[in-house]
Amino acid sequence: MKPIETCTVGMVGLGLMGGAFALALRAIIGEGGRIVAFDRDGDTLALAEAEGVIDEGFTSPQPMLGRCDLVFLCLNPSTLLRFMETWMATFPPGTLITDIAGIKGSIVTVMERTLREDLDFIPGHPMAGSERGGYAHAKRCNFQGKNYILTPLKRNKPENLAFLKALIYRMGFGRITETTAAEHDRKIAFTSQLCHVIAAALIDCEADTEITRFGGGSFEDLTRIAMLNAPMWTELFLENRGELLRRIGQFEGSLDTLKRLIAGGQGMELEERLHLIQERRAAMG
Amino acid sequence: MKPIETCTVGMVGLGLMGGAFALALRAIIGEGGRIVAFDRDGDTLALAEAEGVIDEGFTSPQPMLGRCDLVFLCLNPSTLLRFMETWMATFPPGTLITDIAGIKGSIVTVMERTLREDLDFIPGHPMAGSERGGYAHAKRCNFQGKNYILTPLKRNKPENLAFLKALIYRMGFGRITETTAAEHDRKIAFTSQLCHVIAAALIDCEADTEITRFGGGSFEDLTRIAMLNAPMWTELFLENRGELLRRIGQFEGSLDTLKRLIAGGQGMELEERLHLIQERRAAMG
Repeated sequence: MKPIETCTVGMVGLGLMGGAFALALRAIIGEGGRIVAFDRDGDTLALAEAEGVIDEGFTSPQPMLGRCDLVFLCLNPSTLLRFMETWMATFPPGTLITDIAGIKGSIVTVMERTLREDLDFIPGHPMAGSERGGYAHAKRCNFQGKNYILTPLKRNKPENLAFLKALIYRMGFGRITETTAAEHDRKIAFTSQLCHVIAAALIDCEADTEITRFGGGSFEDLTRIAMLNAPMWTELFLENRGELLRRIGQFEGSLDTLKRLIAGGQGMELEERLHLIQERRAAMG
Repeated sequence: MKPIETCTVGMVGLGLMGGAFALALRAIIGEGGRIVAFDRDGDTLALAEAEGVIDEGFTSPQPMLGRCDLVFLCLNPSTLLRFMETWMATFPPGTLITDIAGIKGSIVTVMERTLREDLDFIPGHPMAGSERGGYAHAKRCNFQGKNYILTPLKRNKPENLAFLKALIYRMGFGRITETTAAEHDRKIAFTSQLCHVIAAALIDCEADTEITRFGGGSFEDLTRIAMLNAPMWTELFLENRGELLRRIGQFEGSLDTLKRLIAGGQGMELEERLHLIQERRAAMG
């Protein structure tokens, strides 16, 4: 792969994350390289061009993909797989492709099986986002110090992996973890999907929108992510259904234990358990 | 009540909240007034004196209470009621007393019945705090724009209520809500206590302290408050047991509904429900 400063980078999807990546890449790629983008929304492309975030926008992938050295697929998982199936033949040989989807099992399985021999696809998951979606909020999506998970395919070229990791750090991310798709999906079911289900359930069980008069930060912190992108999260929840249901079950077990200690007025046992929880959370950093 | 700038204000307990109130009051009270504090910990008092946050510290309440125009009780609920019982006779006539405890039912009930006729006690709950306790972290406790709940007694003097409300706004709080102790305890069971139980349960069900490698902000936001002060929260949970258990039950119901939609692969129903949740959360501001 040539230096990133001379690459043509293609963004597929210029929503919140595509926009945030384009912004981060713009700061790295100077006059020698290009950022191009495909999106169905011509207005978004025109805005991003006018802002100088991308050099050129396309409402069809066809004319764009052939020019790219590196492609970021910033799509929901199902759209991503359909996109790859439809446009597989259009990528030039040697293109490095990566994605940002929040679930990796199906993507890794399908790509291991169907990816063209002369392409390289490194599945990734940037642990960043914003509760407000769309290109308009891309600036709200902060990469500084955030986690990034990579779930490489067996065939990924080491030099491409090294190239992508260096780029991820240059964009501001603080820590890259390489793992399997299965491990990713197990962990993410807990740190991300379960948290979104809990936040949603908290809002689901209280109809009073004036309740925030009684908020001191806890409720706001726990429910900010309830302002979720419903289609995307529906897809993520259902795609990772098995792991997510297992995690919901574990959480229900812990909640039930605390509930029984409270109901039974078991102050000493409750305090002891809360103390262990406090210590464990502190150890998590 | 004379102008706050000429008052002697007594802090009972100089922990996180006592310290935070002393800091906020210091910025308001100049040379004409005094801030005094009782705490069992002489080192904390010496530090606060050296920092100029308080003018004088006392390891016994006896010599301090007699000098105060206004007293902030910054104690856990049970300690607070024992303190009032023990020292009731020591307050000078006309003293305005307020507290900051996170549960109001028992305090209002006992004070309505036992408060000396010539004292005024306005129960309050500042919706501010920090997951790190103690005077050392008082500066972390930000009052700016935060909610403050008052649950006045029937006998509170209107001029004292007006005085305290003006002071609360001057300390930076953004919104005061006056309500009954029962209503306070019902709402707080949801916005505060249920959230703390959920955060605790989330940590309880995951032993891997390296899980934060897979965190993107959601998990961190939902579990920050799991670094809780175990004795205080045990007391709050048990004191408000009835309301809290009712709220846990409601939450379990909503969680179960979402779980069944996920387990059943009911994408359309799930997306519709998440969409309503997103709208409701947005309406909460």
